[in-house]
Amino acid sequence: METLKRKILDEGRLLDGHILKVDNFLNHQIDVRLLDAIGAEFARRFDGEAIDKILTIEASGIAVAVAASPHFDHAPVVFAKKTQSLNLDGEAYESSVYSYTKQVTYKVRVSKRYLRAGERVLIIDDFLANGAAATGLIDIVRQAGAVPVAVGIVIEKGFQPGRSKVQDAGVRVESLAVIKSFDDNRVHFD
Amino acid sequence: METLKRKILDEGRLLDGHILKVDNFLNHQIDVRLLDAIGAEFARRFDGEAIDKILTIEASGIAVAVAASPHFDHAPVVFAKKTQSLNLDGEAYESSVYSYTKQVTYKVRVSKRYLRAGERVLIIDDFLANGAAATGLIDIVRQAGAVPVAVGIVIEKGFQPGRSKVQDAGVRVESLAVIKSFDDNRVHFD
Repeated sequence: METLKRKILDEGRLLDGHILKVDNFLNHQIDVRLLDAIGAEFARRFDGEAIDKILTIEASGIAVAVAASPHFDHAPVVFAKKTQSLNLDGEAYESSVYSYTKQVTYKVRVSKRYLRAGERVLIIDDFLANGAAATGLIDIVRQAGAVPVAVGIVIEKGFQPGRSKVQDAGVRVESLAVIKSFDDNRVHFD
Repeated sequence: METLKRKILDEGRLLDGHILKVDNFLNHQIDVRLLDAIGAEFARRFDGEAIDKILTIEASGIAVAVAASPHFDHAPVVFAKKTQSLNLDGEAYESSVYSYTKQVTYKVRVSKRYLRAGERVLIIDDFLANGAAATGLIDIVRQAGAVPVAVGIVIEKGFQPGRSKVQDAGVRVESLAVIKSFDDNRVHFD
């Protein structure tokens, strides 16, 4: 997706040669016009797939999923919660996710009310790197007896194992911008 | 806003007589069609106000703000961050917010990159109760030399002091559903 790649090159900031900050349009300030185009592109790539629900994870994934929903006939969005003080009354599906960035393992949870057996679920997230969040969400979808149709990603670090982990779990991945390397302190796309 | 009130009555759940859970359409599962109507209603109420930016707070506020943005000429959304491990490189505006629900004080922060002097800012959040988050965001907007044009709220607990705290800070409040009481274990609107 050229507009996205252009935005990453123009407004992304590379810290310490390996941390890509896209706070200018995705993770802190949000360019909603771009997100709408991202949602349209997901719809194009997943054309023909029946999607009952979009699952994402707080916080940054929420914006991407909400902007994508109108392009999937306003499929309801469910966001997995990370916090310990969960305040999810009733039962929840739960999976453990290791954050390489923060070097901690946290739980992600989705109330059993909001995932039903047989539902066809599109998982959406802003980044794919090591695949911990994506595979955690796939695990949760399967616990519910629902179907993880695909994983849609805005920015993938193609040199990290996330994609192969999701594919090993038997789920299709589509990423709108795949970064090949940060060589020479610059972003290079596939 | 009648569709919203109907939704609260039909799908909200009142726990322990005073905790209103709207996880079915706002705080965990998200009804994006409803959010779009909510965005349109905010635009109607703030018609004539020039808005440069929409400010909200993670996590639930993000969905409301992103859905509202297209109704404000796709104004950029900025969400204040709550986490301690903030990962905001560079300087940030910061305010302290006391959570009555969790009985802790936490910091909210917005990078100085994303609020500029003179910008006209619409603050949006899902709930208004004691006004701690809203006044914290007003404080941050003013630290930046920007203008807090108004606070737009989806659900207000009208029997709590949030509205008067925001008005005491000199800022207009518009809430789409104002709850008068939870008497007899039921939701009553103003």
